[in-house]
Amino acid sequence: MTYCLGIILPRGLVLASDTRSNAGVDQIVRVSKLAVLSDTPDRVIAIQSQGNLATTQAVVTLLREALGSGDKVHDLTTARTMFEVATMVGGQLREVIGRDGPFVPGGGANASLLVSGQIAGEPPRLFQIYSAGNFVEASERAPFVQIGETKYGKPILDRELSWRTSLEEAAKLALLSFDATIRSNLSVGLPIDVLVYRADSFSAGKVVTIDDADRYWSALRQAFSEGLAALISRLPSPPAART
Amino acid sequence: MTYCLGIILPRGLVLASDTRSNAGVDQIVRVSKLAVLSDTPDRVIAIQSQGNLATTQAVVTLLREALGSGDKVHDLTTARTMFEVATMVGGQLREVIGRDGPFVPGGGANASLLVSGQIAGEPPRLFQIYSAGNFVEASERAPFVQIGETKYGKPILDRELSWRTSLEEAAKLALLSFDATIRSNLSVGLPIDVLVYRADSFSAGKVVTIDDADRYWSALRQAFSEGLAALISRLPSPPAART
Repeated sequence: MTYCLGIILPRGLVLASDTRSNAGVDQIVRVSKLAVLSDTPDRVIAIQSQGNLATTQAVVTLLREALGSGDKVHDLTTARTMFEVATMVGGQLREVIGRDGPFVPGGGANASLLVSGQIAGEPPRLFQIYSAGNFVEASERAPFVQIGETKYGKPILDRELSWRTSLEEAAKLALLSFDATIRSNLSVGLPIDVLVYRADSFSAGKVVTIDDADRYWSALRQAFSEGLAALISRLPSPPAART
Repeated sequence: MTYCLGIILPRGLVLASDTRSNAGVDQIVRVSKLAVLSDTPDRVIAIQSQGNLATTQAVVTLLREALGSGDKVHDLTTARTMFEVATMVGGQLREVIGRDGPFVPGGGANASLLVSGQIAGEPPRLFQIYSAGNFVEASERAPFVQIGETKYGKPILDRELSWRTSLEEAAKLALLSFDATIRSNLSVGLPIDVLVYRADSFSAGKVVTIDDADRYWSALRQAFSEGLAALISRLPSPPAART
């Protein structure tokens, strides 16, 4: 399993992906599920992925190889909008699943993706691409999208994330959402790749990798757990428990 | 969908169940998913249920009708331990699914249950009964069990609930777990039935029903959301967001 999260806000994007890939509980490897495909002055494009690793690696590799080729169907540098980028990525996903799917039983070749970034002339945009290759766009009313093991990490986002949240707060919420998921589900694990993209910067900067030796991560988890325990102890007791 | 939660602690039990039953999003009714089957000086027995409503209502009704009958297979008043109670409830569930299952396509007659309570001579005990009629027992290391829509409400329990938690704190955590679930999933809804059983009291007391007019519920949600926002804003910003 995997957990990938994309958040879009007026000031930019927060992207986070875990790096655990497993088939069962024994065969565990670390892989990158957050790829920056373009980081040039006119476009920054990132792809996050979950599902069959052969499929997602093929999609990312084929798109990467097509960069600058001029191929109108696969070359993301020819896209005029992020909507076109999402269409091209969805198309590439369909091609790979169409090619490999019949040989992998039970829909095992399936995968889904988050595609995000900014092309000059547009604000940043964020899309969730389904296995079928079609996609939906995140917006002010639904500023985050998730793929993979999405449930455990959703409550804190539903509670606290809104269009008015700052990028810094959103980055904290993203990590707390991952912490919740990792605590509740063995198949999602450290390290986490995090990318914070500031609108109109046209620079993806550096993907920050947070592993279990990361001091910030330890401090964040501890401060949050202690603060949460203190908060809960201050809340009034339920009538059901009063006697 | 449904969400039922059972918590066992040295001082007693906290049980909570939502009351929404739906087939699709249109046909919504309120039902009780928390039944107290025995509340006598030597035994308190409660059953929480999720799954096919015809199945769970049949199981609870048949067991209720068998109380005092002397029937060694179905009469819970003849059980010497809560383990025997769980075995009898699992057996009744098998009978109903065996009878109705073949007529309901695709495993649609399936259901699962939480069975908890105390019989004189034992501490309180808590079991999760699967559709197959077999069951597992909650314990010091795993002091809560959930059935139905379990994921959204799990992180706060994983983070904060332990064997040292008081009944009062556990009741708060149970409600916060429900709040998280209700916020993130349309199919779980108010009111919530809550029962707090104190060990060795041999009195189930009153099932408290919390609906959306409940002042405590509103105050709890508001205080928690505000406290959480304040807590998160005090946490240090992630390195990824520092520039």
